[in-house]
Amino acid sequence: MEFNKVLNDCKIYEAGKPIELVVREYGVDEKDIIKLASNENPYGTSPDVTKKIQTLAQNMFVYPDDSMYELKEALSSKFSVHSENVIIGAGSDQILDFVIKAKCDENSKMLMSKTTFAMYEIYGRQTGAKILKTVDDEHNLEQFEAMYKEHGADIIFLCLPNNPLGECLDKEEVYNFLSKIDKNTLVVVDGAYQEYASFKNTKKAISPSDLIEQFPNTIYLGTFSKAYALGGMRTGYGIAQKNIIKTMYKLRPPFNITTLSLAACIEALKDEEFVNKCIAKNFEQMKRYEEYAKNKGFSYIESYTNFITIKFDNKYISSEVAQQLLQRGIIVRDLTGYGVNAIRITIGTNVQNTRVFKVLDTVFEELDKEENL
Amino acid sequence: MEFNKVLNDCKIYEAGKPIELVVREYGVDEKDIIKLASNENPYGTSPDVTKKIQTLAQNMFVYPDDSMYELKEALSSKFSVHSENVIIGAGSDQILDFVIKAKCDENSKMLMSKTTFAMYEIYGRQTGAKILKTVDDEHNLEQFEAMYKEHGADIIFLCLPNNPLGECLDKEEVYNFLSKIDKNTLVVVDGAYQEYASFKNTKKAISPSDLIEQFPNTIYLGTFSKAYALGGMRTGYGIAQKNIIKTMYKLRPPFNITTLSLAACIEALKDEEFVNKCIAKNFEQMKRYEEYAKNKGFSYIESYTNFITIKFDNKYISSEVAQQLLQRGIIVRDLTGYGVNAIRITIGTNVQNTRVFKVLDTVFEELDKEENL
Repeated sequence: MEFNKVLNDCKIYEAGKPIELVVREYGVDEKDIIKLASNENPYGTSPDVTKKIQTLAQNMFVYPDDSMYELKEALSSKFSVHSENVIIGAGSDQILDFVIKAKCDENSKMLMSKTTFAMYEIYGRQTGAKILKTVDDEHNLEQFEAMYKEHGADIIFLCLPNNPLGECLDKEEVYNFLSKIDKNTLVVVDGAYQEYASFKNTKKAISPSDLIEQFPNTIYLGTFSKAYALGGMRTGYGIAQKNIIKTMYKLRPPFNITTLSLAACIEALKDEEFVNKCIAKNFEQMKRYEEYAKNKGFSYIESYTNFITIKFDNKYISSEVAQQLLQRGIIVRDLTGYGVNAIRITIGTNVQNTRVFKVLDTVFEELDKEENL
Repeated sequence: MEFNKVLNDCKIYEAGKPIELVVREYGVDEKDIIKLASNENPYGTSPDVTKKIQTLAQNMFVYPDDSMYELKEALSSKFSVHSENVIIGAGSDQILDFVIKAKCDENSKMLMSKTTFAMYEIYGRQTGAKILKTVDDEHNLEQFEAMYKEHGADIIFLCLPNNPLGECLDKEEVYNFLSKIDKNTLVVVDGAYQEYASFKNTKKAISPSDLIEQFPNTIYLGTFSKAYALGGMRTGYGIAQKNIIKTMYKLRPPFNITTLSLAACIEALKDEEFVNKCIAKNFEQMKRYEEYAKNKGFSYIESYTNFITIKFDNKYISSEVAQQLLQRGIIVRDLTGYGVNAIRITIGTNVQNTRVFKVLDTVFEELDKEENL
């Protein structure tokens, strides 16, 4: 069977390893496994949301309200936009898919940071678009600007803050950059971790309503998977000018989120206190990782997210560290696939992190021993 | 903002009207609304599945096992195929999307019945492919064959049984047709309602393993949305030869179903007794619709699904009937958009159907009165 040639160059996204796999492959007891690989909210879903879903579970046979009226109203109110400025996706990933499929074909160009969210490139390759990347791993707007001047681009991706590295540009420098971009170039501002960044430093805060008003060629992406603790429910959203949203709707499959996802997100938006508590705890716990890295002499990227990227330079090989952790039931993300000798660890709960440091100590001892053999 | 030109010809799918909308727009009390528009299983989700999801609701913050190991194992075992022959989608719709995007571009052709599942055409138009349709509304394999001989096709869609009409081809005639199709033409056998068809008449039964073994250029699609009563959880699957499945994986976004969908489907497969009971009741209740139509002098299409299509010929206008029902809290699907003067009604429970017949009587009286004014 022959398929479109453009698929020959397509890679399959490698998701963080699930707990189930570690049980199956390494025989670790499920209760001993700590998964800090996919930047889920380690404090779990808000109890109010859980209760709501338990009550509504019997509705699983019914398709969701495909207009998603109530959720769009709640989001519009939260972000001071109209509901016509909002589209809901199966994760913000799906909005990325819409945007890229709507804008790109094999004659198109997409510009992004060297090390950023893998799905930009994966969806891009499905259209045959040319992928342009800056030289630096972290977002460097001078490089973005130079490359844009030289090559142009149909879409530019700014991941604010950036996954999987954690750094975040200031709003002011982003706006300054956007003012130099052509009106027909779509700029995706991926705010999957914005709740964390704006909590830590208001200079990083991007307001979707202000963004799309000042720059009608932008689309802001948000998600319920991180701070809102609903990673498993696959719901995100896009906020943009009406003409952009209307086009995205042409690509949206009906019923693109589940009945329970819809209900969970509506409920989650009513419990912002939970979200803020989780974010505060996140940054408290992050300090422990910074301290740990400093004590071990590792460098790390200052993070505006719920994860931290620890670099091993020439001290260790990140894939070996990750593998050793995995065998001991701790799942982190090895960034070798991104071309970086580092691991990305989701900031866990106090108890989880204490165990991580202990196991990390053992792993480094083990690796040092092997080194000396 | 300019987007790909191919989107100019794209339509937005109009989903069945949700209960929430009828409450909002017509002020009907939620408890008085009967939704028989989207072919959900009216007997609701299996109590075992509901219980399981209530227990697991607190896991909503965790991404699903993206390998979907357990669900794929359960499906492979059910259908006597290897797990490498299976791919899971956010509804079987998503597998359709993969198949069409993998195989088609603006130089491609897709062949389908005149009146069939709308998403074939909608996804097709997103690629710019040419849509070829038979003259007859219902599947007519002679017409399929003649058109295939004349124009060729990259993908052929057989909806068995057919949504939104309800008719179903025999396995034997399907196999005979397939034997004449070129190996590089992909044939999609959409079995969303197969559980119903094979229950009613074993001649309609298609075994996915036998199908893909005899015809390696086919892909079988199944869903948890209908007989398995999980419409709201958006999960379906594709079964095909490994090379086809492998290509589909290149288009599959990570975590394409929710954590709770995954768990619900695994549980649902353990309760086949529930499914069979629902199907038996469905056909018992369908007889009442057939009787009702006969008494009123309406024709209907013999249905192998959980819905029935009642035609009004020149007696009534289906959109008026549907609108009158809607105002009284009964949601059915008007097929005007498909170019057919008919309504499609999901076969409800005994109590629901009794009320439907009563309200239908009122509606026809009302329309007769208007006619005579």
